[in-house]
Amino acid sequence: KMCGYSGIWSFKLLLYTLLSIHLHHTFIFFTAHPLLPSTSFSDLLPAKNGEEPTMQFLLEVVDILTNYIRKTFDRSTKVLDFHHPHQLLEGMEGFNLELSDQPESLEQILVDCRDTLKYGVRTGHPRFFNQLSTGLDIIGLAGEWLTSTANTNMFTYEIAPVFVLMEQLTLKKMREIIGWPNGEGDGLFSPGGAISNMYSVMIARYKYFPEVKTKGMSAAPRLVLFTSEHSHYSITKAGAALGFGKENGYVPLFVNATAGTTVYGAFDPINDIADICEKYNLWLHVDGAWGGGLLMSRRHRHKLSGVERANSVTWNPHKMMGVPLQCSAILVREKGILQGCNSMCAGYLFQPDKQYDVTYDTGDKAIQCGRHVDIFKFWLMWKAKGTVGFEQHIDRCLELSEYLYNKIKNRPGYEMVFQGEPQHTNVCFWYIPPSMRNMPDGEERRERLHKVAPKIKAMMMESGTTMVGYQPQGDKVNFFRMVISNHAATRSDIDFLIDEIERLGHDL
Amino acid sequence: KMCGYSGIWSFKLLLYTLLSIHLHHTFIFFTAHPLLPSTSFSDLLPAKNGEEPTMQFLLEVVDILTNYIRKTFDRSTKVLDFHHPHQLLEGMEGFNLELSDQPESLEQILVDCRDTLKYGVRTGHPRFFNQLSTGLDIIGLAGEWLTSTANTNMFTYEIAPVFVLMEQLTLKKMREIIGWPNGEGDGLFSPGGAISNMYSVMIARYKYFPEVKTKGMSAAPRLVLFTSEHSHYSITKAGAALGFGKENGYVPLFVNATAGTTVYGAFDPINDIADICEKYNLWLHVDGAWGGGLLMSRRHRHKLSGVERANSVTWNPHKMMGVPLQCSAILVREKGILQGCNSMCAGYLFQPDKQYDVTYDTGDKAIQCGRHVDIFKFWLMWKAKGTVGFEQHIDRCLELSEYLYNKIKNRPGYEMVFQGEPQHTNVCFWYIPPSMRNMPDGEERRERLHKVAPKIKAMMMESGTTMVGYQPQGDKVNFFRMVISNHAATRSDIDFLIDEIERLGHDL
Repeated sequence: KMCGYSGIWSFKLLLYTLLSIHLHHTFIFFTAHPLLPSTSFSDLLPAKNGEEPTMQFLLEVVDILTNYIRKTFDRSTKVLDFHHPHQLLEGMEGFNLELSDQPESLEQILVDCRDTLKYGVRTGHPRFFNQLSTGLDIIGLAGEWLTSTANTNMFTYEIAPVFVLMEQLTLKKMREIIGWPNGEGDGLFSPGGAISNMYSVMIARYKYFPEVKTKGMSAAPRLVLFTSEHSHYSITKAGAALGFGKENGYVPLFVNATAGTTVYGAFDPINDIADICEKYNLWLHVDGAWGGGLLMSRRHRHKLSGVERANSVTWNPHKMMGVPLQCSAILVREKGILQGCNSMCAGYLFQPDKQYDVTYDTGDKAIQCGRHVDIFKFWLMWKAKGTVGFEQHIDRCLELSEYLYNKIKNRPGYEMVFQGEPQHTNVCFWYIPPSMRNMPDGEERRERLHKVAPKIKAMMMESGTTMVGYQPQGDKVNFFRMVISNHAATRSDIDFLIDEIERLGHDL
Repeated sequence: KMCGYSGIWSFKLLLYTLLSIHLHHTFIFFTAHPLLPSTSFSDLLPAKNGEEPTMQFLLEVVDILTNYIRKTFDRSTKVLDFHHPHQLLEGMEGFNLELSDQPESLEQILVDCRDTLKYGVRTGHPRFFNQLSTGLDIIGLAGEWLTSTANTNMFTYEIAPVFVLMEQLTLKKMREIIGWPNGEGDGLFSPGGAISNMYSVMIARYKYFPEVKTKGMSAAPRLVLFTSEHSHYSITKAGAALGFGKENGYVPLFVNATAGTTVYGAFDPINDIADICEKYNLWLHVDGAWGGGLLMSRRHRHKLSGVERANSVTWNPHKMMGVPLQCSAILVREKGILQGCNSMCAGYLFQPDKQYDVTYDTGDKAIQCGRHVDIFKFWLMWKAKGTVGFEQHIDRCLELSEYLYNKIKNRPGYEMVFQGEPQHTNVCFWYIPPSMRNMPDGEERRERLHKVAPKIKAMMMESGTTMVGYQPQGDKVNFFRMVISNHAATRSDIDFLIDEIERLGHDL
């Protein structure tokens, strides 16, 4: 249709408008048509004459995606349209998850794409606060689109020259920010914080008991890992996986200091821990998966003070820095140890007689073989924002948390889970419905309060207006954990969350 | 410019053509303009009025990507434009890898995107044969674009309802294809074959010695893992990581049968191995990272005959099935054991009091916490191709290998590395330059031959025409390993490779 519209336009409309023009104006010779209903995957590249259907198909996909992006940032759009597993499995109107033997038309594939987004959760929505990773960064997104188009693998320079160098430069920059002299050391991007933490335990073991690599755990005395109660469960998982077990052993090996715990956002005192580690010659790992981003902020980096004394650091740009999932780094102070710990020297990948400097092949340092390109989106975001852009983002998120904290700390119906200002963007609180406000402390109140957050959360998801996490912790009954890493969130979204909790919880 | 062109068009031209039209025809009220040089990331969404610059920026990015895609499939385009690390680090014209404190303009970001692709390797090019993962599947690519736009995490149903169900259904389908009764069992997508193989070792250990999870390796006798010499190094890496070591121990625990070795593409006799495993009560793992795809082919699946007797199977759709990286599955016959082995019950993620059926939360089965959505592209490809589409792809690739094998097995100047027809698409051969053809066997010939493949490969990369891998193996000097998983490759590309090897190697 040729009717006027401005501002909001779509790729598809662009195309169809051109098609209409095509009918009227002979001077444009586009041959682009909408996909025919009979078009199938086999008409796409590398098929003969596949270029046009391929471009048409991708255009339609991009149209779906850009519509989704637009709506994601639009507060009048719901965060999610909740359905139970059985509902989605039974099949929503026209959306069938089952796989079949015969191909579907591209037209149906586009419907599948649309429906996949429709029944998903808008993690970039300004009112999505449910996880540590939120937000939809447009530069990061463009980086991911490019990464998947390049579709390569980090294991050798040979097939990922640019990405390998980007990784190297970015890791060096991160080590400089940590404070290791000249940014020396080593590191890798791994599929996530849990794997990064697992690396730290592996490397520590290799450092003190290198013979474990060839002789197994029986070559070492029984070893102990120390970590705080609030640290992330990936440390325990790594211990279990790597054969340490969870019980007390005898020889202290490794201490994990958490920089930004998952629930409270608390920072362990790294310098104090480092003193002990140095005294007893223990490996010090800082799990900054969540809190590492604060290193980018001149105002907040003191919370990680002492991090430069760590032997290894986990830092997930996909959390506080808003980089799309997955993007996690393990950084190691000592050069060469990653290679020593993990190398198996596979001849088919790491030929020593290549024509280029093979120290750029990263594969043998990793516990993975193929390794996804996680660096590009991060590198591109850094280019686009500069270090100062990340700093502003982090300062802004922390300011928003402070705003929330100040808003509710004395507000009727709220109790804070821990005393004092939050160190990170985590604000943990109970909402007490009016009916409970005069109840005496005791088991009955605890039991009722335990059910409040889950109930409000369930109603929140049903109405689709916002999402925030809750959990119990130790002897504390279910409470809300609000976190902010989304660059789209504003004070009005914080206000909205509080209003929504009160609206949904008022009559409980 | 309004001049006519047809067939090949670009998104950007679409836009600019519209802009030109805009000047002449008042009935179209597009306000879309090319990005202003001063536009920066802070003008994009969620910025106020950020919608238009966001769409413009993404349009430009998609234009770069679609141009790249077009060229990838065009045989007149080079596979790569090789540069040494120091060259790229010194900075190519206008392409600076260094990160800075201040933001770059979006204009520069687009240049960076273009250059990143320019100096990369076209892994989807019909003449890229360098790795087990090759090809650029358009449906898979669309799936990845959508996945990164959705930017969520597999750990809970709560934030990835559709993807979690897709994973569940797809894994079930894969287990049915393996041949486990009713497709029962368990599984996960992991970041790659090495991690999938690591899961298999962990689960086996948990099955026979569950106390290792809490008490560490000292709770078990010294354990042995069996695997063939040609198996993938990830099995050894897993053994080292998990605390088994590489030396002989005492109690046999686990046998890995490789279905499609990395270099030769050989299949271990699964049934024979399963007989022994059953007799001695050992865990049987089938590493089908590379060969698993053959299960989709009625003609070739007999090579994995007995796979249904395995306790666990690794199967990487990102290799033989052409799914974009990363996409690897670990499939487990026994239900519940993945959970038993890996669960740590983190309260903040896996609340038991959610309003939906929490058995759909997959996170506690994984050694990861956050887990990238690897399922969607695969699911979408399966939808678009049907099971039969994958079968055709696999049969075609194996036919191409047969064509190559038949072409060179008796051709002057070629020697096959192993006798008999290849079982997979791996064709391993030496090219003997004319100057060496009359040399007697012996150390001198071996030494010269060892240098032939690296030299040809280096020249190949310098000229950028094609890429194929080489390596030594055991006492065999460097030989070429040709593999085909790229759906764009044809017989003419095989012919081209052989011509190219002869052109470059003729005078060695």
